[in-house]
Amino acid sequence: MALDGNTLRTRRTVERILAESLRLFNARGEANVTTATIAGALEMSPGNLYYHFRNKERIVEALFERFEARIDMDPQPSGGAAQAIEDLWLYLHLVLEAIWEYRFLYRNLDDLLARNRRLRDVFNRIIDHKLAAVDALCADLVAAGAMRATPEEIRVLARNVLVVATYWLNYQSIRKRRDDLSAADLGTGAHQVLSLVAPYLLGEARAHLDALSRPYID
Amino acid sequence: MALDGNTLRTRRTVERILAESLRLFNARGEANVTTATIAGALEMSPGNLYYHFRNKERIVEALFERFEARIDMDPQPSGGAAQAIEDLWLYLHLVLEAIWEYRFLYRNLDDLLARNRRLRDVFNRIIDHKLAAVDALCADLVAAGAMRATPEEIRVLARNVLVVATYWLNYQSIRKRRDDLSAADLGTGAHQVLSLVAPYLLGEARAHLDALSRPYID
Repeated sequence: MALDGNTLRTRRTVERILAESLRLFNARGEANVTTATIAGALEMSPGNLYYHFRNKERIVEALFERFEARIDMDPQPSGGAAQAIEDLWLYLHLVLEAIWEYRFLYRNLDDLLARNRRLRDVFNRIIDHKLAAVDALCADLVAAGAMRATPEEIRVLARNVLVVATYWLNYQSIRKRRDDLSAADLGTGAHQVLSLVAPYLLGEARAHLDALSRPYID
Repeated sequence: MALDGNTLRTRRTVERILAESLRLFNARGEANVTTATIAGALEMSPGNLYYHFRNKERIVEALFERFEARIDMDPQPSGGAAQAIEDLWLYLHLVLEAIWEYRFLYRNLDDLLARNRRLRDVFNRIIDHKLAAVDALCADLVAAGAMRATPEEIRVLARNVLVVATYWLNYQSIRKRRDDLSAADLGTGAHQVLSLVAPYLLGEARAHLDALSRPYID
């Protein structure tokens, strides 16, 4: 489809607004950033910004949709035990990276979802997908003889994986007594989450995971 | 020490203010309750309330101190494996009950601790104590031959226990798409936390924990 000049310009403007909003929200917290700040940072008139986004909540919603698309990358079951462990490891890193990229959503999750029911539905859809993905990865590992766990244990495990992955950055920012978390905190997060899975793994698979985790022990 | 009538009256007034504030904060969220609301609910003049608490933040701080005292109940190592499992189970329930009683603190934890450095220090002191308590309980279980885990595994496990216990109510309120959590959600929380410990337990100890957990499977 050919796009005319106006449509292209509109798209570029929307992209610039979203990119700058994400940067500012992550750096200062969404509550501390106004649409005027965003327009100012882009050297754009407030009127131009309002033309694309009626208010800040619309920007937050658009970013939430981007995040949903970004984090929608559930792995395909692969077969071999070693491959399944690598898949789990890689998958978790990709998920945590996506969370890091949109960390403003997670730093203020409860407020955000309490005030906006539509976002709560989107977030629950994300969690549903992730629970199913962790479940499938574990079933994969059980089938490959690399994990011993009942379906009920896997269900409870998947939920713990989600709780720790969702709130790790919040916990860490309280514990470190500062807000300037770094990518290293993601590594520790990955280690915390994988350690939930580790005790259910058998022999080689567990040794493989331990080897992958070692660099992240803090 | 004998207390004169004035001191007694002051103490009773402080107790009434704190009890009513806790009730209102839990029911409506701390952000949605003003000192005027609290005074009104107590049929007290705002001036009388201000005499005891200069502003709402002082009330929140006083409640946080109460919470710290309330949750300071770390168990003594006991020796036997069966006893250690029961201790862990009981301890966890008491901790979750305390969190439930002061749930407004947890529903808005990140905001609260971001805006008030003193509370952040108190909270970190609480977490430090809890990490040490979980560590000691696990060491107890290892010594009793009921658990197999390295000190490093226990350290990471204790951290996961704290993350899940701290954020369980938040996760649950997002998942249930409503704010009116019940004591049953505490039971599921206890089950989630104990399932972190379960895979490290051996033989009888694991069976014992599974039996204790069964009523809480949802």
